[in-house]
Amino acid sequence: MDLDQLRPDSERLAAGIDELSSFIESDHEGWTRRVLSEPYLDSRDWVRNRMRAAGLDVHVDVAGNTIGVLPGSGSRSRAIGTGSHTDTVGGGGRFDGIVGVLGAIETAERLQETGIRLQHDLMVIDFLGEEPNEFGVSCIGSRTMTGAVSRAFFAKQRPDGTSLGDELTRAGYSPAAMLDEAGAPNRLDGFVELHIEQGPVLEREGVQLGVVTAIAGIERVLASFLGRPDHAGTAAMRDRKDALVAAAEAILAVEQIGCSGEHSVATVGSIDVQPGALNVVPSLARLWAELRSPDPGWLGLARRQVAERFQTIAAERGIGLDLEWLNDQDPVPTAPAVQDLIAQTADSLGYTWRSIPSGAGHDAAHIAAVAPTGMVFVPSLDGRSHCPEEFTETAEIAVGVHALAATLVALDGRPSA
Amino acid sequence: MDLDQLRPDSERLAAGIDELSSFIESDHEGWTRRVLSEPYLDSRDWVRNRMRAAGLDVHVDVAGNTIGVLPGSGSRSRAIGTGSHTDTVGGGGRFDGIVGVLGAIETAERLQETGIRLQHDLMVIDFLGEEPNEFGVSCIGSRTMTGAVSRAFFAKQRPDGTSLGDELTRAGYSPAAMLDEAGAPNRLDGFVELHIEQGPVLEREGVQLGVVTAIAGIERVLASFLGRPDHAGTAAMRDRKDALVAAAEAILAVEQIGCSGEHSVATVGSIDVQPGALNVVPSLARLWAELRSPDPGWLGLARRQVAERFQTIAAERGIGLDLEWLNDQDPVPTAPAVQDLIAQTADSLGYTWRSIPSGAGHDAAHIAAVAPTGMVFVPSLDGRSHCPEEFTETAEIAVGVHALAATLVALDGRPSA
Repeated sequence: MDLDQLRPDSERLAAGIDELSSFIESDHEGWTRRVLSEPYLDSRDWVRNRMRAAGLDVHVDVAGNTIGVLPGSGSRSRAIGTGSHTDTVGGGGRFDGIVGVLGAIETAERLQETGIRLQHDLMVIDFLGEEPNEFGVSCIGSRTMTGAVSRAFFAKQRPDGTSLGDELTRAGYSPAAMLDEAGAPNRLDGFVELHIEQGPVLEREGVQLGVVTAIAGIERVLASFLGRPDHAGTAAMRDRKDALVAAAEAILAVEQIGCSGEHSVATVGSIDVQPGALNVVPSLARLWAELRSPDPGWLGLARRQVAERFQTIAAERGIGLDLEWLNDQDPVPTAPAVQDLIAQTADSLGYTWRSIPSGAGHDAAHIAAVAPTGMVFVPSLDGRSHCPEEFTETAEIAVGVHALAATLVALDGRPSA
Repeated sequence: MDLDQLRPDSERLAAGIDELSSFIESDHEGWTRRVLSEPYLDSRDWVRNRMRAAGLDVHVDVAGNTIGVLPGSGSRSRAIGTGSHTDTVGGGGRFDGIVGVLGAIETAERLQETGIRLQHDLMVIDFLGEEPNEFGVSCIGSRTMTGAVSRAFFAKQRPDGTSLGDELTRAGYSPAAMLDEAGAPNRLDGFVELHIEQGPVLEREGVQLGVVTAIAGIERVLASFLGRPDHAGTAAMRDRKDALVAAAEAILAVEQIGCSGEHSVATVGSIDVQPGALNVVPSLARLWAELRSPDPGWLGLARRQVAERFQTIAAERGIGLDLEWLNDQDPVPTAPAVQDLIAQTADSLGYTWRSIPSGAGHDAAHIAAVAPTGMVFVPSLDGRSHCPEEFTETAEIAVGVHALAATLVALDGRPSA
């Protein structure tokens, strides 16, 4: 088979990115299209229509994922899947997620145009709400599809007290049915997700493709330092129980821990201080920290280090400490067989590639629990992501789509798949 | 004159504290009665009635201060003043401010009950809004009374965009007339304010009274560290421009600078982080720091140190820095002659005393610009203030009121006054 003929139509790809990324929340900065917002729901109608125009049989599954099916020859009972998501973080960029959805649609279109018939049905998936949202959860569609959600998941509330379940119901989904999906049989024989790297490695090294080895695990902790609200003019420095200076030491400890491992990071993304008055010594400082690594050993060690360092800081200052470990996620290695297929495909197409772990979470991390899964990265300009400056050239995306299409053909032909 | 007869009626004093402190904003924690809130306005009606019941001629001056006048013998054209404020910070205590107002009323009552007639009129003053408020200003009444306000002062806005001037107008005051007050002649020949210490020194040393030597000056700065909002999972630690870790270093630098001077303090009371998402490296961290000292030399040096340390921190991390110095206030020494009068009075009454600087700001700091001014402190339990645990025994307050009354008599008799 001449895999070169699967090369995507770059103009069609670029036009799709322009159209889909134009659905934005006008009252927010950047390219913002958060899950369940009106522009997000409108954009998913656009995706459905785009899938239909590409010749796919479209349905929304119980999990809320938009799925376009390209029927195979009928010799395989399960499907091969590809896709990503179309929601963004607040103030996000134009490429995170939609490159994988539009690349999947383009692949289905090219397969039809070139007359290449897969043995498996090909499922092109736009997963529901991948980004972390104001309910404190992420990957709604891929978690639900793989039966990884619970009643507690849908009971999570955003700051105004509305639950995720209520908001999903309002948007036309059924949390009750989504819970039942936990017992549904797996429909996939394999899955490949195309995504932008969101980091600087590929661009810095001049490499066209990243073959993802693992998706980083995440540990998140809410640390509450409890001091005393003294008068900031009259309480002598030595008498204070200043919750914020303890938190400041903790923030620097997190940074230090983050620097201790390869491909590992640690971040304090948010902090909240009470009473927050200029003339009162802070009595409460709450910080949200996260640790990420593709290495489960490092992650476990870093978690223990955070707990120990924070306890030492609090004890030395005579300050209270409450540590609440939030939703964590183990590192997920991708399937070595799929990694090999991607690498061999890249070689045969003449594209440069390197192995790379993913620091960001992805829908693929959840699909990996039920089917052999891989990921293909394309470069991100300056490694920027989750910001308006996020950028990848159409030509770079086209390389990724080409590799994705050829990999899916190879995956389809695997005896074991 | 037998000054012992000026000893206050402790039961009346305690009853007044119980009644006045019961005006609170029910939807806030602690003893909260913020300036211009409904409970605050109601409490000032109570103060007016209390002053009238104590035999005073009551009016609200242009500056919004409630003033009860006890006429003197008519031989002096100006008055002698005493008083404090009745507003509180959010989540504040029961004694900060009202001890000085109720002690002043009690003094006027005792002078009448004992038949002691002053040469000067005695002005008992409940100053409008002494505490820092959501408009970012403090000491509205004492600043206005001494002509220290400007158009910019009344234009200051709280977070919802309402200006101080508009809110004062809504509450029945006239910002235009308050501005004109700048040209009014000084009505005071001397002023003494009774207040709780709000610090631990008197209690720790077992001393009954504090003779305030100076009221600390304040320098406030808003520091904005400007980093880059990278993806917290994919941006390597060494590539980050994390605004929050820079701010954390700055917070620890402020603490270190605060520990460098006697009777001097430095505090970061509030911090705000953008975008504040768990999975985004903070791109903006704004912190509000203040420096306080009775020593103008230390204050100037500390201000330069803050600027230099912050600039070094930002430069080392390749992060932007914007420093905005907010309203500052020079240290205000009290009048040595009034300090001597308070100390001599305490000695003659048999009370123990020590000289002490005030770390907190007070209305007296503004009155000191127009008249010889002094302050008397009584102990605070564990030095706590601006919190619900703030406490001073009635017997301790009575000692302060007794010393206040006797000092005012002495001040009245001064040839130079």
